[in-house]
Amino acid sequence: MLSETIAAISTAVGEGGIAVIRVSGPEAISEVAQLFRSKTPLTEAATHTVHYGFIIDPASGEKAEEVLVTLMRAPRSFTTEDVVEISTHGGVVSVQRVMDLLLQQKIRLAEPGEFTKRAFLNGRIDLSQAEAVIDLIRSKSNKAFSIALKQVEGSLSGKIRLLRQTLLEALAHIEVNIDYPEHDVESLTAEFIKDKTGLVMSEIDSLLRTAEQGKILREGITTAIVGRPNVGKSSLLNSLAHDNKAIVTDIPGTTRDVIEEYITLNHIPLKLLDTAGIRETMDVVERIGVERSRNAVTEADLILLVVNASEPLHPDEIELLEQIRGRQLIVIMNKMDLPSQVDREVLSRYVADDLIVPMSVKDDQGVNDLENAISKLFFSGKLESGDLTYVSNVRHIALLKKAKQSLQDAYEAADMLVPIDMIQIDVRLAWEQLGEIVGDTAHDALIDQIFSQFCLGK
Amino acid sequence: MLSETIAAISTAVGEGGIAVIRVSGPEAISEVAQLFRSKTPLTEAATHTVHYGFIIDPASGEKAEEVLVTLMRAPRSFTTEDVVEISTHGGVVSVQRVMDLLLQQKIRLAEPGEFTKRAFLNGRIDLSQAEAVIDLIRSKSNKAFSIALKQVEGSLSGKIRLLRQTLLEALAHIEVNIDYPEHDVESLTAEFIKDKTGLVMSEIDSLLRTAEQGKILREGITTAIVGRPNVGKSSLLNSLAHDNKAIVTDIPGTTRDVIEEYITLNHIPLKLLDTAGIRETMDVVERIGVERSRNAVTEADLILLVVNASEPLHPDEIELLEQIRGRQLIVIMNKMDLPSQVDREVLSRYVADDLIVPMSVKDDQGVNDLENAISKLFFSGKLESGDLTYVSNVRHIALLKKAKQSLQDAYEAADMLVPIDMIQIDVRLAWEQLGEIVGDTAHDALIDQIFSQFCLGK
Repeated sequence: MLSETIAAISTAVGEGGIAVIRVSGPEAISEVAQLFRSKTPLTEAATHTVHYGFIIDPASGEKAEEVLVTLMRAPRSFTTEDVVEISTHGGVVSVQRVMDLLLQQKIRLAEPGEFTKRAFLNGRIDLSQAEAVIDLIRSKSNKAFSIALKQVEGSLSGKIRLLRQTLLEALAHIEVNIDYPEHDVESLTAEFIKDKTGLVMSEIDSLLRTAEQGKILREGITTAIVGRPNVGKSSLLNSLAHDNKAIVTDIPGTTRDVIEEYITLNHIPLKLLDTAGIRETMDVVERIGVERSRNAVTEADLILLVVNASEPLHPDEIELLEQIRGRQLIVIMNKMDLPSQVDREVLSRYVADDLIVPMSVKDDQGVNDLENAISKLFFSGKLESGDLTYVSNVRHIALLKKAKQSLQDAYEAADMLVPIDMIQIDVRLAWEQLGEIVGDTAHDALIDQIFSQFCLGK
Repeated sequence: MLSETIAAISTAVGEGGIAVIRVSGPEAISEVAQLFRSKTPLTEAATHTVHYGFIIDPASGEKAEEVLVTLMRAPRSFTTEDVVEISTHGGVVSVQRVMDLLLQQKIRLAEPGEFTKRAFLNGRIDLSQAEAVIDLIRSKSNKAFSIALKQVEGSLSGKIRLLRQTLLEALAHIEVNIDYPEHDVESLTAEFIKDKTGLVMSEIDSLLRTAEQGKILREGITTAIVGRPNVGKSSLLNSLAHDNKAIVTDIPGTTRDVIEEYITLNHIPLKLLDTAGIRETMDVVERIGVERSRNAVTEADLILLVVNASEPLHPDEIELLEQIRGRQLIVIMNKMDLPSQVDREVLSRYVADDLIVPMSVKDDQGVNDLENAISKLFFSGKLESGDLTYVSNVRHIALLKKAKQSLQDAYEAADMLVPIDMIQIDVRLAWEQLGEIVGDTAHDALIDQIFSQFCLGK
């Protein structure tokens, strides 16, 4: 398969100044050269050079498009294969007609993620780095992007490899003892294994501690804004959505199935759920059972309850507070510009004092306090510095947990002086589970499944 | 203004494998170099080379993005200035964070079309070529793209320059005769002027003859499909839309305000209007006055009336035929697989025989005949070969018409032996009007207006 030459449009589809088609594989240069007319023949061009010229339709001999062609010879390319990038005028027709001509050559359309898959299969990056590439593209905040970029550079891979190295030492030790049982001092070996597995477990623990935050930074905090009519929910939504560096909003086609609105508050992406349904049901409490509203609240990681501070709490609000007891909740006391009437005594039965945020949405007062309250709730008040490696991928988290369990089993077995070859099985399992994260021990079906989530052209 | 360095995202916005930021201006290389860490410093790199490295946030010293940077030194670039293209990972955050860092340097955000405007102001392309660049991006069919590409290469410019040269000769001749009237043989000069202006007029005529077709190829034939309920309108629409190389459909963000569907039939783009309204009003004839439906039919360049061939013509259909008498009309006799009942005698009172197309939409029978009928109606049966220069831009068409009128005036004045300095005014006017097409005599406001229609990053 790797001997085939592949091509795909690598830029987003739509109207733009330019679009880029990427071609990779052993025939990339020679096949593109047959369509490309320029001063220097492409086949003679040096690596990492750019050439102005025309793509010619071989059937008619006519110019099909004016292009810039960039050449990157193996192995100094994204895929480590010969890569040619063709920069065409933007627009749908332009890029499509060049693609059509390429696909008439000995070039086939790339599958989604196939360029990155080749980078992986050719050994330039490991699986966790490849997965981070898609995180880069899909990231919804600067912070999430930075985390993904670190992972692309191999921060997680490096840590995982160290842990596997440690386990390998333990396995070697066990191996020696199995082969030469006469040299074995059982209790010393057990101590050695407990040492090594304990060390790796505590490292895994510290990685897993970043997981919750990593996932939030990657996927955003699903947030439902609820409250009675006219307390200022829509104003809050608008104020948050329009003033706070909304990155993804308003851009059609950015994500595939977004009905929600993404905003970024203090580096934390919030996925605001449309809670129109809830707004209405708040009006008539008996309708709170309506499926859609219930779902929004159920699904939310965070509930922002907006109340009108200038009025006493309404029985509906008390009822809602009862229903969502135990959930992550921030109460926004809106309209603080008016004299306060809300009974904080009652409120504080449901929510900690520092999670009650006085605001005046119409004057943009209190947004900072809201940001701080959210940080506090999800990041213990401070976002970790850029140095931390976050584990944010559910697949990685699941594998880390499995590996930890295997090591726990090994540790306990060693503690109980269980025969060494039994312990070996668990240590080996943990070693393999960690290996699956970076792809050393991953099977083809998993690899295919991971790359199928990529977009075309990457 | 030209001394400023500008930057913009040049690829379409959205999720893609890569995105490209273009930077142009005297400081492009030095300013990007301050953010870019690579093996070879950018300032020392040769033109037309590509460099792998990282964009660094100067505030934190941290890596902001992994990029490929392409360098094109003046004058060998799109703008003829130093140009740096930064290829980032696709996705909204990635490209935006690099843009943010660039704009903190001595670089400002480019206006829409500003790169192309600089190419024009720096003399690399003329105004009609610049206008063709936007046509390239917006083109809705391969044929339209080919026409625009020819114009980018200067096919129209070349013709216009030749015509202006001819007029300049006439003007020189007039000048001599004004300066040295003693040498003048009035009638001979008049003949010379008639010769030259006549020549240019006939050339303008042949350009204008391409205008109608050029406009259609560029903008598409606005087409309304009308007919009574259940005659097969929706099936025809679906059959045309889904089987016929729909280029623009289904791609969000491709055009700004599309409610219509674009399809390409035999190289001819059709803009299919949503005629749901008409479909309903056909059911109840008295509602035919409904504004929306009337608009769709009024606006259409082409009306496709679908009738059920297996039934006699309905009075509603006769009434509609009466109403649209004189419009470009093709009648589709659908359901030809059933025994025909339609009275062709009656039909032929409204439409020529070869514009009545028997089809069986459900069997995909007759689509070719429909294509031919449309070709016949709009292109006298054959699309001109690729060699022809089409004038498709309304601005160019208007200027050609004005120039022709000026020349007509000059010709008639010469014929009546009007004093030569009067004739000079008209010839000079024509020379200027043609100059406005290529931008030689265009004023700033016009130029600004033209480039403001461009997309950002071009």
